[in-house]
Order: sequence, then structure tokens, then C-alpha cells
Amino acid sequence: MAKSPETEHPIKAYGYASRDTSGVLSPLTFSRRETGEKDVRLKILYCGICHSDLHFAKNEWGLTIYPIVPGHEIVGVVTEVGSKVEKFKVGDNVGVGCLVGSCGSCENCANELESYCPKQILTYGSQYFDGTKTYGGYSDHIVADEKFILRWPENLPLDTGAPLLCAGITTYSPLRYFGLNKPGTKVGVVGLGGLGHVAVKMAKAFGAEVTVFSTTPAKKQEALEGLKADRFIVSKDQEQMKSVLSSLDGIIDTVSANHPIAPLLSVLKPHGKLVLVGAPEKPLELIPFSLISGRKIVAGSAIGGLTETQEMLDFAAKNGVTADIELISIDYVNTAMDRILKSDVRYRFVIDVAKSLKAP
Amino acid sequence: MAKSPETEHPIKAYGYASRDTSGVLSPLTFSRRETGEKDVRLKILYCGICHSDLHFAKNEWGLTIYPIVPGHEIVGVVTEVGSKVEKFKVGDNVGVGCLVGSCGSCENCANELESYCPKQILTYGSQYFDGTKTYGGYSDHIVADEKFILRWPENLPLDTGAPLLCAGITTYSPLRYFGLNKPGTKVGVVGLGGLGHVAVKMAKAFGAEVTVFSTTPAKKQEALEGLKADRFIVSKDQEQMKSVLSSLDGIIDTVSANHPIAPLLSVLKPHGKLVLVGAPEKPLELIPFSLISGRKIVAGSAIGGLTETQEMLDFAAKNGVTADIELISIDYVNTAMDRILKSDVRYRFVIDVAKSLKAP
Repeated sequence: MAKSPETEHPIKAYGYASRDTSGVLSPLTFSRRETGEKDVRLKILYCGICHSDLHFAKNEWGLTIYPIVPGHEIVGVVTEVGSKVEKFKVGDNVGVGCLVGSCGSCENCANELESYCPKQILTYGSQYFDGTKTYGGYSDHIVADEKFILRWPENLPLDTGAPLLCAGITTYSPLRYFGLNKPGTKVGVVGLGGLGHVAVKMAKAFGAEVTVFSTTPAKKQEALEGLKADRFIVSKDQEQMKSVLSSLDGIIDTVSANHPIAPLLSVLKPHGKLVLVGAPEKPLELIPFSLISGRKIVAGSAIGGLTETQEMLDFAAKNGVTADIELISIDYVNTAMDRILKSDVRYRFVIDVAKSLKAP
Repeated sequence: MAKSPETEHPIKAYGYASRDTSGVLSPLTFSRRETGEKDVRLKILYCGICHSDLHFAKNEWGLTIYPIVPGHEIVGVVTEVGSKVEKFKVGDNVGVGCLVGSCGSCENCANELESYCPKQILTYGSQYFDGTKTYGGYSDHIVADEKFILRWPENLPLDTGAPLLCAGITTYSPLRYFGLNKPGTKVGVVGLGGLGHVAVKMAKAFGAEVTVFSTTPAKKQEALEGLKADRFIVSKDQEQMKSVLSSLDGIIDTVSANHPIAPLLSVLKPHGKLVLVGAPEKPLELIPFSLISGRKIVAGSAIGGLTETQEMLDFAAKNGVTADIELISIDYVNTAMDRILKSDVRYRFVIDVAKSLKAP
């Protein structure tokens, strides 16, 4: 018989879990493994709330095994290291992102592209090598192989930096891979939420000229003044869309609701690239001629590898890229989830774990 | 009042034209311009029949102005050159493909990507710089600016080489641009028609390992033995599709009927590329997650520039790449069109223009 979350490992842990498709989070006592030779244990200080946390809490992707402790934008301080850990010591500030494991032997792993390893192990809701389940960052501590631990740059704030571990790498990686990271590149960002607002900052940090596409006219001021975007287009306004026809080198599309992509392809220059990083559940309509006539591409991109994530954190620290956050207590998490559903957050909730999560 | 096709230019020409949406072709006397300073005139020897000819003849893309003389896979011999023509002389074998003009000043033209110039002038059915209409290769002769004339390689057959001017460059260009032209690359070709069978030969000439996907099991033998493909998969057979899951670097999809692309994305490796060169009229269903999880792309590609087309012809000549054709008389053209509709051709009709088209 499988052991319970509370007894399967020797180290007691405490967090917030969803137990059914209501997605309501409540306290859970569970357990974590002892610190292995290559493991790093950290006391969690902050954890961002990603929209995926909500999907997993409610089992909207059909992948959830309850109870589930979400959270994959984790920042903390090292409390213990295994005997063979080389890169970290007790007291270091570190991060844990979306992954805590991968096969280590496939072509993707060999190329430091762990986020495309078919056997990747997610920080929560996955099965670890030892057969036990992984639990995320809405908890007091976590332990992971040092390969999946990120060194926290000295001048990167712990709280506003936490969301970079998902939202940052998810936007930084495709900007680089698809060649949209050169100064003067004309980049579009679709959707101004957790991912989108970081995409704008990353693209600006690369020196791009950034056009924000949103369905919400009221976001114009925050896009231009707050996020320093160069242009704001209401994507449902055909006249505004016409004004940027065939003008962009690439677009990072962060929208996870179903939406038409033909208008987005029309604002790309020939050879332009539309990169999807949000994941609408239903199929999108793709008109082949809209690609063929301009040798355009529609692509997808999923977070990034560990080396690239470290590079992204260092880049963010150097260029002052952080997320705009609302810092909350753990007991506010269910309200936060409701507000995320209503897009009522500018732009990311971060849980002040160390201050608000107290084991009973 | 606009002049008639017969009188708008001084040089009499004769060809086969469609006059209405029936698409039925019948003799037409029209006219062509005098040979300008930079112009090359050629007597047409052979002209391939492309599926687009059929679309244009029947106005299926809504772009046709009747009468229309189709044909953009034209091979002939030079009969006259303008005073400033540098690259050609009377008696040279030459080709004319899908384009006879472009703006010459946009970014695409500057980069020798004339097929993406928004002001490109098609070989037939377009308006030329002087306001007159262009007429294609189902005719006795044609005149074009030397920039749009291809030098015919000495050892490339005139008849079986003709289809390369559309089918050849349409498949060669994306293989190169999307990096699928390296020896050992695993390339899929979807659809075994005029484009598809040339795609197989081009990919093989690049040294790729080629898998053909077709809905027609009966094409297996011709794919493997005739075209030297390495593998044949019936795309509707789930077991067969499973056997090549995540195995290909890229796919050239030549199918112009509506078809599901999710199964094609599933046989791509992570970072693989699905390139559409056929143009289904209705939108395809694109499941974002099928791109995101493997950083895959769906792209389109349209013929190629003139420099690249010349390079393709030279490559084809060097590597013995030609089309499999059925050589026909011009008076068989309507029957040929009917047979194309039924996919009853292995794989391209080529009209023996010089021998069968006689001016009255």
C-alpha cells in the first residue's frame, strides 16, 4: 500500500494543498525526503502564483493527483546541502522553478533543454525518480538536486524576482531562440498579464521596440508608462491593427484563452514569428495562406532549460527586470486565485511564505 | 477604353485560355510587348501544368480576370534579346517560373526574396508595370525581363526539368531555409503529388532520410522503389503513425486539401518544423500545446527568389533531380485538368508546346 503524503518521507513538511476540483487550498502536513548527496534543501521565503497553479489545483488539464501543493516560482535560503553538492552552501539565496528533474540522457538533456525532456519532472504534481509525488512551493521548505537549483543574483530582489522563475524564463527563452533579442527588433507582446508584463520588460531590456496588443483599452497607460512599451494596440480595433500591418519581427503571445491568430500573423513582417507561450485548450484556427505568403511561422515555447534560466536571472539582475507584484499572506491564497480568474492583479501575486506560513 | 488582349501589344501571340469559371481552355489569339532593352523573348518548348493553373482557370481563389492563359513552368529557347541584356543570347535554353516582376526596392527584393515582395508580378493573371495583363506559358512565346529568366543547365532535360520551376523551388527553398538540407536529416513529405514527389527527390539529393506520408496505401511501392523514399507511412493508420512518433526533424506538407496537422506535429522531434507549401482554403486546426511542449513550429513557404531558383536548377542538374512527367499535346490539356482533379497523374503533366501548339 502506498504511504500517505505525511509518512512517505522522514522530513516533515507543511503547506497549502488543493484536495479536489474545487481548487480550494487548505493546510496540509506532508513530508519530504532527506537531503541526498547531490541535494540542496531550502527554507522557502517567497513563492509566486502562476496561472498553471490554478489549472492544476482544479485539475483543468486532467493531470492532477490530489492532494496537490502548487507553486513553481520559489525563492528561498539554503539550510542544508548534501556531501557532493558543489555549487551551493548553507545561507545562499536560491530559486527553484518549474522543474526538479529530467532524464539526463536524452538529446534535450544533453543540450541543456531540460524543459523539452519527455521525462521531465515538474516541481509539483509529478512523480519523482523514487516513485513519490512532488510538492511545490506553497510550503515551508523544499529539497531538490542541485542541478535544478538556481543561484540567486545578489542584486535581484527575492520577492519581485520570484515570478521570473516561470514568467521570466518562459518569455526570455523564446525571445532568444527565435532571434527577437537584438536591439531595434520590433517585438509584439499579446496579453498583459503575469507573462505578458514580464515579456514587455524582457524585450525592452534586449533593446527591442515593443508593441503591446491587448483587448483592454484601459491598460494603455500602464503599458506605456508603467512598463515602458513603445506602442499600445487594442487588438479588436481593426483600424489600430491596420496601423501596424506587416511591421513586426516577432510576437510573444501569452494569451491562454482562445483567440484569433490571423490578425496577429497579419502584423508580422514577412519571415516573422508568432510564438505561443500561453496554452489555449481548444484548437486555434490557422489559415495556411497567412503563413505561406510571407514565410511566417507559428511556434510554441515551454519555459527553458536550467542553464538558460540561470542566464535569465543574471540578465534580469543586470538589467533591473523584475515582476510587478502584490505580496500576500498564504491565507489570502484562495482570494488571490479568484482574483486571478478575473484578471484582477497587476501582475503577479507572490506569497510571503516565510512570514505567513506557520506549521501548527 | 482598355485595348483587347489581341491589340494591346504589337507582337501577336497564340495560346490556350480559360474564359470563365468552367475552367475549360480553348485557343486564344492575344499579344505580347516588343522586346525591351532588358527583355528576353523565348519560343516556348515545354510548359508544366501546376495545380494552381487549375485554381486560376476556374477562379477558385477569386483572383482571376478572364481570359487567363495559365502556365508558370516554362522552358524555351531564346529568340531575341534587348540591347542591354547581359546574361543571355539567342539560342540559349532558358526557363520562366512563377514570377516575371517585383518592385525591386523592398526589403525582400533587396534580399533576393522576390517571392515575398508584396508587389510581385505573377507570370500569368497579374498586372504588369505597364498596366497590361500577364499571360502564361500555355502559349507560343513569352517575353520577360532578364532578371526573371533562368539559365537552363546543360544536362538538365527540358521536359522533365520544366516542373522544377514551380514544384522544384517550392520544395527546395523550405528544405534549405528551415535547415532540412543536411545529410542525415530526417525529413517527412506529406502528399505524393506534383510537389510531393519532387520534395522526396530534393530531400534525397540533400542526403536526408525521407519518410513519405500518404493517405493512399497503393502509393507505397512507387514511393519506395520509384522515388527511393526510405519509409512509407499511411497517415490515417494510427499504428503506423505511432511507429514514427517524435522521429523527424522536419516535414514538407504539400497537401492542399484540408487535413489534420496534429498527427504530423506528433511525429516531429522537439524543435521540429512542419512547413506548409500546399494551401488548403479552410483554416486548419492548430492545438497550441502540440507546439509548446516541443518548441515546434508550423511555417509556410512560397516558391523562392530568382537567385535561389537558379541555384535549385543547378543543384537539380548536378544531382539528377527531375520530375516524373506525362508529356501531352496542348489539345489534351482539358482532359489533363480533369485527371489532375482525380489525382490521376504520375506526377506532372507537361505540355509539348513546340510540337503541338500551332498558330492558326
